[in-house]
Amino acid sequence: MKTNAGRFFEDYAVGQVIKHAVPRTISGGERALYHALYPARHALYSSDDFAASCGFDKSPMDDLIAFHTVFGKTVPDVSLNAVANLGYAEGRWLKPVYPGDTLRSESEVIGVKQNSNGKSGVVYVRTTGRNQFDEPVLEYVRWVMVRKRDLDAPVPETVIPDLRTVVPADELVLPEGIDFARYDFDLAGEAHRWSDYKVGEKIDHVDGVTIEESEHMLATRLWQNTAKVHFDATNREDGKRLIYGGHVISMARALSFNGLANAQMIVGLNGGAHANPCFSGDTVRAWSEVLDLAETDAPGVGAVRLRLVAYKDGAPEFALKGEDGKYHPDVLLDLDYWALMPV
Amino acid sequence: MKTNAGRFFEDYAVGQVIKHAVPRTISGGERALYHALYPARHALYSSDDFAASCGFDKSPMDDLIAFHTVFGKTVPDVSLNAVANLGYAEGRWLKPVYPGDTLRSESEVIGVKQNSNGKSGVVYVRTTGRNQFDEPVLEYVRWVMVRKRDLDAPVPETVIPDLRTVVPADELVLPEGIDFARYDFDLAGEAHRWSDYKVGEKIDHVDGVTIEESEHMLATRLWQNTAKVHFDATNREDGKRLIYGGHVISMARALSFNGLANAQMIVGLNGGAHANPCFSGDTVRAWSEVLDLAETDAPGVGAVRLRLVAYKDGAPEFALKGEDGKYHPDVLLDLDYWALMPV
Amino acid sequence: MKTNAGRFFEDYAVGQVIKHAVPRTISGGERALYHALYPARHALYSSDDFAASCGFDKSPMDDLIAFHTVFGKTVPDVSLNAVANLGYAEGRWLKPVYPGDTLRSESEVIGVKQNSNGKSGVVYVRTTGRNQFDEPVLEYVRWVMVRKRDLDAPVPETVIPDLRTVVPADELVLPEGIDFARYDFDLAGEAHRWSDYKVGEKIDHVDGVTIEESEHMLATRLWQNTAKVHFDATNREDGKRLIYGGHVISMARALSFNGLANAQMIVGLNGGAHANPCFSGDTVRAWSEVLDLAETDAPGVGAVRLRLVAYKDGAPEFALKGEDGKYHPDVLLDLDYWALMPV
Repeated sequence: MKTNAGRFFEDYAVGQVIKHAVPRTISGGERALYHALYPARHALYSSDDFAASCGFDKSPMDDLIAFHTVFGKTVPDVSLNAVANLGYAEGRWLKPVYPGDTLRSESEVIGVKQNSNGKSGVVYVRTTGRNQFDEPVLEYVRWVMVRKRDLDAPVPETVIPDLRTVVPADELVLPEGIDFARYDFDLAGEAHRWSDYKVGEKIDHVDGVTIEESEHMLATRLWQNTAKVHFDATNREDGKRLIYGGHVISMARALSFNGLANAQMIVGLNGGAHANPCFSGDTVRAWSEVLDLAETDAPGVGAVRLRLVAYKDGAPEFALKGEDGKYHPDVLLDLDYWALMPV
Repeated sequence: MKTNAGRFFEDYAVGQVIKHAVPRTISGGERALYHALYPARHALYSSDDFAASCGFDKSPMDDLIAFHTVFGKTVPDVSLNAVANLGYAEGRWLKPVYPGDTLRSESEVIGVKQNSNGKSGVVYVRTTGRNQFDEPVLEYVRWVMVRKRDLDAPVPETVIPDLRTVVPADELVLPEGIDFARYDFDLAGEAHRWSDYKVGEKIDHVDGVTIEESEHMLATRLWQNTAKVHFDATNREDGKRLIYGGHVISMARALSFNGLANAQMIVGLNGGAHANPCFSGDTVRAWSEVLDLAETDAPGVGAVRLRLVAYKDGAPEFALKGEDGKYHPDVLLDLDYWALMPV
Repeated sequence: MKTNAGRFFEDYAVGQVIKHAVPRTISGGERALYHALYPARHALYSSDDFAASCGFDKSPMDDLIAFHTVFGKTVPDVSLNAVANLGYAEGRWLKPVYPGDTLRSESEVIGVKQNSNGKSGVVYVRTTGRNQFDEPVLEYVRWVMVRKRDLDAPVPETVIPDLRTVVPADELVLPEGIDFARYDFDLAGEAHRWSDYKVGEKIDHVDGVTIEESEHMLATRLWQNTAKVHFDATNREDGKRLIYGGHVISMARALSFNGLANAQMIVGLNGGAHANPCFSGDTVRAWSEVLDLAETDAPGVGAVRLRLVAYKDGAPEFALKGEDGKYHPDVLLDLDYWALMPV
């Protein structure tokens, strides 16, 4: 068999390091496509001049372009046989990515736990994305539920990594030279600054986008994510193609511009759940909640911890979970991240 | 409320200057997408070598890329609550845009007129797009009908700007160094030169493109145009997404290559009407009429004033308006522009 | 008539040289789109660093980007009135294409044969793509069946070129400096090397992609291919848009990564048949057969001759032709090419 059948649960062992294939050089082309696929308008990722006024050499690639590129490489090794993408933790962006950079990914298995049904198990990996200078640009933990190939394979010793529920603000890595002292709020699109947001505040981002098959496939392929459920309409009995969770993350983040235009840069990923599957024809909307506010050492730069919720048309306002602790069926995504904002 | 509800009629006053948000650096990525979205083949915008033979350093971005980018920035401030996009006038391209340039937009309110129903009014703005050197690259006037938020808001004094119906040929701005003396008609794709066209001549551009939802959304997002009618299928009662008028402009212009391959560069926009809405599934076709011919000072360069009409499949040949002066229901666009052509 | 009605059979004569219009400068934008349109993952075309480790200055454009660009330019002159695209032969890639290169195409008519029905004929052309330095980057022969405009036009003398069914391995042109001695199989994605493949071996590439209208139109326009059957849903009585055969080639080649990740570079096109038409909604899959193996002079580089078959969901395993010699109705493409692989 020369084709990749993907790893099964019994193929993972704690301590294993997987060097993921197909490094990728990204250019202005990926950036243009990102703008075509999502209503992305954060000025730092749109304009070289704006980025220069914030202390960057030029406009970096959107943080989520870095995330998707690094994540996509892991799919053939980590989630080809995944039943579910269970969670994220301890994500940090460590260095901006620029057009011309080449990214590759590596994952270390940091936990395994076979399910009591004996048919599958949970695998935890810590993934690091690196650029052409071998500098880490992004790291995060994710855990997935993976099927066993051989139900009789020995049950591994359970190792559940000790993961923090939140990246502490003082461990966030700020890009070298970042400076919001001369931040132009007019060009950024909104006047609200860090001090205008209060913990507990919720923002309905108003706009919605109805999802099309070709768009999510273009996006998912762009990150060289090969999971067949996204592309092959014959794969599920209902003929539906499951939309890559990252497509919903980017759509919701872009929609959140309306109300959070100054939450410029994502620097931490505290957690995230793909609450329900998203399909073509769904109209995706988003709301955010301010979870925390923190100061940073960089001039004029504050950090804001945000919950970003994507939901389908039909969900009640600010819907999240029911009394049973389960996500409302129209909630698609519950993401917890840190962003940088002018103070 | 931290989200942008858009301006309403009573928020505009003559003399107001609006600095639009989110400057944008454009690259070869936007150009590639333009070629993927439209059957664009004008050689000047396709080949660095061809452009060099015409006196340019390299191939400029399509004029309509400049137009859409500048226009897109104005949407959150000008047309978010627009009932209709009523017209264009006095448009001039002032400087070519190249990959790597950063564009931003500014608009001055030059006219307001409340409608007799008291529920809405017409707002006239003159928009200027500038590059990173603060040089104007494009200017045009457009007017839109905007709803009032508060029907009791005071009625402003009516100011209707005195707009010329045609940009005089001697006020067109030709790109520095443009020279069609060594123009290669073989590489350009057609042998017809400026002197081969006659005023009154009509050209049926033959080809048609059936429009898809994802394509017009990709295009509209690419220009960071955020008007929700283009993206949210729940926005209209009929579940249809209204296609951005600029998508029809670009589609028609690209189709007009067949018969007008040498109408290389758009330098003036005299007027334009989005005659009827366009929806996914429509097959768009185009015809042109030569309205005027003018000489220019540049070597080998003539100007041609063209009417470009986009229509849906089903319209009779060269359909435009009925005896009642109203556009035929299958006519989508009636655009009046100046282009440069080898003499 | 200023529009291009395309050439008809009687417009071709052996010896004629057609200089095709609209040269094209390609950039990182075309590459990004290629990755969005196809699940392309060959590392040489994805990473500047990987390409550098193989002796290239940076990552070249995918060979099929070069092919489609050169091919697209020929459509208005060669296949606008084609009834069928009958075959390819003697294709060789002669020089890598890099971002920033400008490509143009020229074709020489090398054969004509009127059909016995007197309504159409077969035209053979040898097409050469050249870059901005006038260096040939690609050459191939294709033959198409073209309608006659005037059934009474004189019957030309039949000339059928003597075409080789296979490009001999020692006539393949290897890129200057190519060196697979330090080839990184981990980064490439698979461990199988040239010596691991056996003549006669068949590989089912496992994955499938369900085709959407917008995607094939984006792709086809990207190569400035203007054949209206691909874009205009009113063109066929059944309302279907015929998918550009090259879209199926690229889709199948990208799918073949899974099992042939190290078949990095296409250097020869021996033949090809678009066995059956492909339409939106079809789920495209692929299988390959190793037809030959040859050594080369470059360090660590072997050549492998592959049959690449694209088929629609529903075809039996490794389906090709029936006992009657006709292609199975679910087979879409039967392509015969040479690729380079680490030994």
